Amino acid sequence: MTKKVTFSDIAKYTNFSKTTISRYFNNPDSLTLESRKKIEDALIALDYKENKVARSLANGKSEMIGIIIPDLFLHYYSQMLYCLINTYSKYNYKFLVFVENHDTNKESKYTKEMNYIKELMAYQIEGLIILSNTIDSKTLSELSIPIVSIEREDKYISSVNSDNYAGAFKATNLLIDNKCDILIHINTDVAKEIPSYKRIEAFKKACKDRNSKYTCYLSHLGHNFEETYINMSKLYDDIEKNYPNMKKGIFVSNDTHANILLNILIKNKKKIPDEYEIIGFDNSPISVESIIPITTVNQDINKIADTAMKLILRQINSKNRGNSVKLENITIDTDLIIRDTTS
Amino acid sequence: MTKKVTFSDIAKYTNFSKTTISRYFNNPDSLTLESRKKIEDALIALDYKENKVARSLANGKSEMIGIIIPDLFLHYYSQMLYCLINTYSKYNYKFLVFVENHDTNKESKYTKEMNYIKELMAYQIEGLIILSNTIDSKTLSELSIPIVSIEREDKYISSVNSDNYAGAFKATNLLIDNKCDILIHINTDVAKEIPSYKRIEAFKKACKDRNSKYTCYLSHLGHNFEETYINMSKLYDDIEKNYPNMKKGIFVSNDTHANILLNILIKNKKKIPDEYEIIGFDNSPISVESIIPITTVNQDINKIADTAMKLILRQINSKNRGNSVKLENITIDTDLIIRDTTS
Repeated sequence: MTKKVTFSDIAKYTNFSKTTISRYFNNPDSLTLESRKKIEDALIALDYKENKVARSLANGKSEMIGIIIPDLFLHYYSQMLYCLINTYSKYNYKFLVFVENHDTNKESKYTKEMNYIKELMAYQIEGLIILSNTIDSKTLSELSIPIVSIEREDKYISSVNSDNYAGAFKATNLLIDNKCDILIHINTDVAKEIPSYKRIEAFKKACKDRNSKYTCYLSHLGHNFEETYINMSKLYDDIEKNYPNMKKGIFVSNDTHANILLNILIKNKKKIPDEYEIIGFDNSPISVESIIPITTVNQDINKIADTAMKLILRQINSKNRGNSVKLENITIDTDLIIRDTTS
Repeated sequence: MTKKVTFSDIAKYTNFSKTTISRYFNNPDSLTLESRKKIEDALIALDYKENKVARSLANGKSEMIGIIIPDLFLHYYSQMLYCLINTYSKYNYKFLVFVENHDTNKESKYTKEMNYIKELMAYQIEGLIILSNTIDSKTLSELSIPIVSIEREDKYISSVNSDNYAGAFKATNLLIDNKCDILIHINTDVAKEIPSYKRIEAFKKACKDRNSKYTCYLSHLGHNFEETYINMSKLYDDIEKNYPNMKKGIFVSNDTHANILLNILIKNKKKIPDEYEIIGFDNSPISVESIIPITTVNQDINKIADTAMKLILRQINSKNRGNSVKLENITIDTDLIIRDTTS
C-alpha cells in the first residue's frame, strides 16, 4: 500500500509553505492562478487523494446535505430524490439519504426521526431537505441548521411547494367546462397545514364560483393496492347509487388512485369520457401507462428540486457569513395535461 | 451559541484521562461497563454532540456506504434503494447516494462515474454497492475498497443477483403447460455477462426441452413510454402476421413492457388468456395496477438488499482485520406469481 500524501509532502514538492497548501484547499481564491496551477500539478505528480473528512473538519464545509423522504414507492418521491441527487453536477453537493420510518407508534416514530437528524448532524451536513411530516416545523426551526421542506407543514421553516391551488382549480374548471352534472373530489382527509390541502380548497371554490353541484369523499383509501381497490369499489357503488343518470366529473388527488378508479369504471362498462370524466394529479408514469391515458396535473419536480437547492445554498451562505437566515416559502407553477379521460 | 464540548471537558468532568475518553469512542469494549456508564452520563450532562467526521478521521470508520444506482424511474431500482437505506435500523450504516449519469458519450459517462467513486472515497466510505454497469468489474476490483454489485457484470467482484434463470424457466414452462402454440420472448439484446441474460437462456432452454415452437424479439424498445408504445405496436403487428390462429404465450422481460403489450392487445380486442397469455418480470406495482393483473416473476428485493449489506460487512471486517477479501457471488430465489394474464 502507498503512504498517504500529506500537506507537508505537497509543500516540500512545491516549495510553498504548509499554510499556502491549506489555503489552496480552503480558500483557493486567495492564491494566484499560477500558484494554484503549480499545486494542482503537484497533486497529480504525488497522486494525492483528497480526504474530504479531514477537510470538512478543518473548514466545516462537508459539502453534504441530508435528505429525509417519506418513501420511494410513490413515483413522486422517487423522482424528487432523483432530481435532488442530480443537482450534484450543478452544485457539487452530495446527499446522505434517510427514508422515514413507518413505526405505527407516533412517539417512537418521532424519536427515530429525531435520531436520523442527530445522525445527519453528526456528519456535519451543511443543510437538511425534509419531505417527511413527522416532526413539526417549530422543532425543526430550532435545530440551528439550514432547512428547506418540500410539500409538508412549513409554518416555521423555508419551503418549496407546488401550486396545488392553481392545479386543482384548473382541473375542476375543466370538468365544469365539459358539462359534468356532478363534481366529485376524492382525497384523504388532509390537514389544513399541509400544502396539498389547497387541492380540496380550490375544488370547492371552483364549484361554488360556478354554482356547480359537488361533493367530496375525504378518507384514507388504504395502505396497499388491494385495500385501495376494495375501498374505491365501494366508493364507485356509492357514486352510482347517489348520482344516477348524471355525468360525473371526478378529480382524484393522485394518479395511482385515478387509475384504480378508471379500471373499476371500465370493468363496469362505463363510457369514458361520456359518462365519467377523470382527472388525476402528479403526471406520474401510471397516468400514461393506464388503459386510457389520464388527464392530470403536472408538478415541475425538476424545478422544485433545483429551487430547494438554491434556497438551502442561500441559507448556508448567510449562515457562513454570520448573517441571520430569512424564511422563504416558494410556490412552483403546476399545469394541466389533457389526455383521454376528459373530453 | 454554546461552546463545543471537547474530550478534555469530558476527561475533566469524569476524572478519566483523555486517552480513556478516546478509547470510549474508538474501542468501547476495552473499558469496563462502569466506566462506560460514567462517560455516558457525562456526555448527557455536558450536552456533548458527537462529531462523526472527527471520529471517522480518528479510526477510519465512517459508517458510510456509497451507492451508485442507474435510475429511480424503474420501480425495481427505487424499491432496491429503499430497502438498502432501510437496513440502517439493522446495521447502522448511512448511505451517500449517486445516480448514474446519462451522458450519451461513453467516454465522458465513464469519466463522470469514476469521478463519483473518487468523491465517495474522499468521504472515506467503508464500502460501495454498485448497480450501474458503466465501469467494468476489473477496474472496480482494483479500487481497494469493499464492493458488492447487484444485477450487473460481476466477473471480478462480489455480487448479489436474482435467480434470473429459475424465474424465466418457470415462466416459460407455465406458458407451455397452458398449451400455447408459439412461445415468444421480448427483451433487449442483453450482453452475455449481465445477469439478466439468463432470462433469455432459460426461455430458450425450456422451449427446446419441450420441443415447443419459439422465437425471441431482442431489441431496445425505447427510452420512454411513447417510443416503447410505438415499437411494441409494430411488434404486435408482426406477431399477428407471423402466427395467425395460434395461441401465443409471451414472456416479457419487465412488467412495464408487459403492461404496454397488454393495453395494445385489449385495444385490439384480443382475448386474454384465451388467445394470448402474458408473463412479466419484477412484480412491480404496474403488474397489479394494470387493467388485467399480470402474472409475473417476483424478485425478493428485501433479501437482495440485506444480503448485499451482509456481504459488504464481511468484506469490511476482513479488511479491518488485515485479511484478504474473498469473492462471493450469491443468487437469491425468484418465484412465479400467478395472476389473470395466464390461465
